[in-house]
Amino acid sequence: MDTEGAVVGVTRLAILGSTGSIGTSALDVVRAMGRRVEVVGLSAARSVEALAEQVAEFGPAVAALADREGAERLKALLPGGCHTKVVWGPQGYEEVAAGCGADVVLSAMVGSAGMLPTLAAAKAGVRLALANKESLVAAGGIITEAVKAAGGRIIPVDSEHSAIFQALRAGRRRDVRRLVLTASGGPFKDLSPQELERVSPSQAVAHPTWQMGPKISVDSATMMNKGLEVIEAMWLFRMSPDRIEVLIHPQSVIHSLVEFVDGSLMAQLGPTDMRLPIAYALSYPARVGLGLRPLELAEVGTLEFRRPDFERFPALELAYQAARTGMSAPAVLSEANEEAVEAFLAGRIGFTQITQCVEAVLAAHQPWAVDELGAVVEAQRWARARAREWIQAHGRNR
Amino acid sequence: MDTEGAVVGVTRLAILGSTGSIGTSALDVVRAMGRRVEVVGLSAARSVEALAEQVAEFGPAVAALADREGAERLKALLPGGCHTKVVWGPQGYEEVAAGCGADVVLSAMVGSAGMLPTLAAAKAGVRLALANKESLVAAGGIITEAVKAAGGRIIPVDSEHSAIFQALRAGRRRDVRRLVLTASGGPFKDLSPQELERVSPSQAVAHPTWQMGPKISVDSATMMNKGLEVIEAMWLFRMSPDRIEVLIHPQSVIHSLVEFVDGSLMAQLGPTDMRLPIAYALSYPARVGLGLRPLELAEVGTLEFRRPDFERFPALELAYQAARTGMSAPAVLSEANEEAVEAFLAGRIGFTQITQCVEAVLAAHQPWAVDELGAVVEAQRWARARAREWIQAHGRNR
Repeated sequence: MDTEGAVVGVTRLAILGSTGSIGTSALDVVRAMGRRVEVVGLSAARSVEALAEQVAEFGPAVAALADREGAERLKALLPGGCHTKVVWGPQGYEEVAAGCGADVVLSAMVGSAGMLPTLAAAKAGVRLALANKESLVAAGGIITEAVKAAGGRIIPVDSEHSAIFQALRAGRRRDVRRLVLTASGGPFKDLSPQELERVSPSQAVAHPTWQMGPKISVDSATMMNKGLEVIEAMWLFRMSPDRIEVLIHPQSVIHSLVEFVDGSLMAQLGPTDMRLPIAYALSYPARVGLGLRPLELAEVGTLEFRRPDFERFPALELAYQAARTGMSAPAVLSEANEEAVEAFLAGRIGFTQITQCVEAVLAAHQPWAVDELGAVVEAQRWARARAREWIQAHGRNR
Repeated sequence: MDTEGAVVGVTRLAILGSTGSIGTSALDVVRAMGRRVEVVGLSAARSVEALAEQVAEFGPAVAALADREGAERLKALLPGGCHTKVVWGPQGYEEVAAGCGADVVLSAMVGSAGMLPTLAAAKAGVRLALANKESLVAAGGIITEAVKAAGGRIIPVDSEHSAIFQALRAGRRRDVRRLVLTASGGPFKDLSPQELERVSPSQAVAHPTWQMGPKISVDSATMMNKGLEVIEAMWLFRMSPDRIEVLIHPQSVIHSLVEFVDGSLMAQLGPTDMRLPIAYALSYPARVGLGLRPLELAEVGTLEFRRPDFERFPALELAYQAARTGMSAPAVLSEANEEAVEAFLAGRIGFTQITQCVEAVLAAHQPWAVDELGAVVEAQRWARARAREWIQAHGRNR
């Protein structure tokens, strides 16, 4: 890397979670960037066929799956003469994150499963293109310290945090007054409390402005996603939660803003396409043309803004509470949420019960310090167990 | 100045045009900044009493007026023991611009009268806080070369150009695709061609979103102001006119935008208060709190955008033509416009005749090179004379 933190020459990229929504968008970006990017590592959980196709196209040095069975199936699918090393399990993911010589590691696994590989990448001193917000929510202190100690850097891939990262460049850090995270409000921003109770999983995964995977789509619908983003922003930009605001902006055209002490706000706007922040994280400080259709504000016509409704969407308030409490509370919040979202997607609890479950688990939690990884993992385990109990007691299949 | 171009310690400020709208706002900023700014020079055209009050409050080393008579009256108004040197005429303005040891010169005179003092400040190698767009329109090449040769810097004070200046910091110059100047559309954006013909001077000076002086208010109403800003942006940011767009945005909340090659747009937003860009030009790269009421997008609610209507507001199209033609055409455009606006404010021509006059003068002009000041002055003289002839022939008091 050069003094600006730019990768010199060809970027060697590893992707944790390459078959998901972010991962496949990232590979689109790689195709658009041509020879400027070389894919050196890919990983998936269980999408063996999809990973096999990606390995055949990009020829990474290493490819990882969640378990040995998947790895064996992948090997069988690869053509003879393929030099990709196939690995599996936590150690396999670590090898993708830190053992294949990547300059940039895109952390795009879903949920807290991404935490250990993300930490491995952080420790390797690479540029960490971070889409897996749950790892920063659960272990923000540990990961940011590891990045600092290893001389790496985090470039956020969430569109909101990418916007803030870009807007911060227009001023000095000490002159920042507050961060404003925009939120589409999700697909249910206009539903009544009664209507919210009847929301189905298929309704919840259809987001109005962004194409995303099921977990983040449900999180957007409950607004827990925005809450997790508040906590993510705390760690990325070293801001206290009372200096991070959420603003409902249904069109998702302004991706977020930074307010400075003079009253100026700097904002980043753009098409609602995840390839934009992904490409920025790869090419920063340069920018590369992706052939996206330009954003024409005259065609958009109108941008709207309003304050979030904390009463209909209590997940956001819960996240602020966990942020202010600190210690293990954010890890518990995120992990209980993950369990509840899985239960909702499986039809075991209703939509509004997701946040009720998280609230109950958080209320029962006595937070502890999370200075080392064991304490984080313990908090996650505790939260999962408690969330399962709550779902068992309150869910539909009791 | 330090390596970032920041003024170290107390900023020594001279203001060309201190009794006008920008000038008085600047002195408000100086009051808010306290001892960080020392006023070393002030000037006005004929507002002797107002200047006398400013001199009494700020005690500059030098104060200038347009003529000897004004200077004598000012001297008589100043209390005994006042050490301010009172000067007059073009040489007096030059002394404020370049002879009183200013680090920052705010060029805020109205119209092309500001050109020579602005050039003097440019040659002095100071930071030029530029509000007088007409000088850059007429003599952009000469002024920017002078700034470069003397090691100074221009920081724009127009809110649009300040926004672009700030947004450009978020990326690399070579990655810029286009600049987007926002325009409120002025007070008459919804009037029919017939209604436009009947607009009175008092209607034209009442701008919906910005408090400004009469000349720029009329220019906003015809949209010539936006046209002049396009040419100003060409010189400030070294952009061809086909990479500078105008976007109607009635709320004036987004002050302008920069689009980068990846499709990202960076925008600066803020209260519609000229103290914001003035303070930025003084304190850059730092920002200072001015106690302005923060911009709350949730309170604003809605931002609207549409393409400009070149047919109802032909001044904008004329300005683009002059920009593409280059050479003496922008100077002629601006000077003919200045004469026509004065005639409109004096009730001698109608509102839509302002642009008709400019169009006629521009159509009769055979452009010449403006590499040295004499050629600019000659173009201005030619344009004034032609505009007067047109007004004589077509105006109400024939």
